[in-house]
Amino acid sequence: MTDRSPKIRLYVDAPLGAGAELELAAQAHYLTGVMRRGAGDEVALFNGRDGEWRAVIAAAAKKRVSLRVEAQTAPQQDPPDLWLLFAPIKKARTDFIVEKATELGAARIRPVLTRFTNAERVRTDRLQAHAVEAAEQCGGTYVPAVDAPAKLAEVLAAWPGGRRLMFCDEARTARPVAEALAGQARGPWAILIGPEGGFSPDEAAALRAHPGVLPVTLGPRVLRADTAAAAAITAWQVALGDWR
Amino acid sequence: MTDRSPKIRLYVDAPLGAGAELELAAQAHYLTGVMRRGAGDEVALFNGRDGEWRAVIAAAAKKRVSLRVEAQTAPQQDPPDLWLLFAPIKKARTDFIVEKATELGAARIRPVLTRFTNAERVRTDRLQAHAVEAAEQCGGTYVPAVDAPAKLAEVLAAWPGGRRLMFCDEARTARPVAEALAGQARGPWAILIGPEGGFSPDEAAALRAHPGVLPVTLGPRVLRADTAAAAAITAWQVALGDWR
Repeated sequence: MTDRSPKIRLYVDAPLGAGAELELAAQAHYLTGVMRRGAGDEVALFNGRDGEWRAVIAAAAKKRVSLRVEAQTAPQQDPPDLWLLFAPIKKARTDFIVEKATELGAARIRPVLTRFTNAERVRTDRLQAHAVEAAEQCGGTYVPAVDAPAKLAEVLAAWPGGRRLMFCDEARTARPVAEALAGQARGPWAILIGPEGGFSPDEAAALRAHPGVLPVTLGPRVLRADTAAAAAITAWQVALGDWR
Repeated sequence: MTDRSPKIRLYVDAPLGAGAELELAAQAHYLTGVMRRGAGDEVALFNGRDGEWRAVIAAAAKKRVSLRVEAQTAPQQDPPDLWLLFAPIKKARTDFIVEKATELGAARIRPVLTRFTNAERVRTDRLQAHAVEAAEQCGGTYVPAVDAPAKLAEVLAAWPGGRRLMFCDEARTARPVAEALAGQARGPWAILIGPEGGFSPDEAAALRAHPGVLPVTLGPRVLRADTAAAAAITAWQVALGDWR
């Protein structure tokens, strides 16, 4: 559900502020060749820190576009301090998880490798590019960082004190997600979605014993990992996040 | 998050009960050629009415497989009486909506054509096949019916009395979804997800004036239609559905 008159939104690295001038190289072809924009046309820019700004194309060539930043059009809006941990699956569904996590509002995306993870090679740069594209599309001013894949055991061993972990347990013995989240404190949280093959018994035991873990059940049907990720973030957002 | 030792689950039309015998033609190649199953192997069957049953392959040929139904392995479990209405979008994302609605638990899927619907041709049979496949994969015993596309105005004109309609309003002026749903009565409901181009002003006005409509906002970010569908069903399920 995007705006009817699609405006071009681009993520840039540079600081944004009134009067700033910047040059784009990587996005020059998209702007001039694909979207047919030229000198005088407007573009919306965000960098994940300074909100959204209106910029005007000062000069456009095939490989280089210069822009002048004019005025802020939206304030910076960060998502809640929510991490999404998931075991990568097939490429298209992993891409989907990153896109949905960005739109639904996760602050950091961490692929984790479990005993039964059965993934094609995870290209972190590709997933990060997907997060950027999702933020550009969905009007967000924030792009979640996508980490390089790490082993679940190592991630848990280095777990920061005070960050809660909602563990979506496909064994369905945990409480329903909304009931489990009711009355929980807001603050730093993470969601863990298991691999399509499930967690190994020792992984499940380690998770249950981990401090701050909240096992939850996502409804009576078995969900694919990508569905579970979207549903879990939504359930968390309505209970403790910025959907309230 | 499916079982580690994938069992074959097939949707069939035939009545299921202990001792029933049936023949499969359309799925014969999948069973024998793709999955390499033969006489004596077990398959799980469901028909959307009688729960899940274990069946044994009695005889297998390339184009015809006979099965004998043995015992029920899961009771019939219908989703809540929830319809999903959505304006079709690009093929892959429309497929995705049908898959996710099936897993998350919708009873009926109704593509609706709005003024700004910009869809490739909707093939209802293809979407229905997607719903069947999603039910087979997710362990469900129910397959939502996928209707042929209909105009939104006509759908609203024939709206059944007593069925509430949660309208996901991308204008973001409505109350947050969880707050809007809190305290609402259970019973027949529907969710409407608008087209990527938004509703036209007269469509939005007609929706707001429709009896039983509940406008809601799905968080502070703009969601793609497929993301909105998955999020809206989840939010409804945790508030009023079978995720409680």
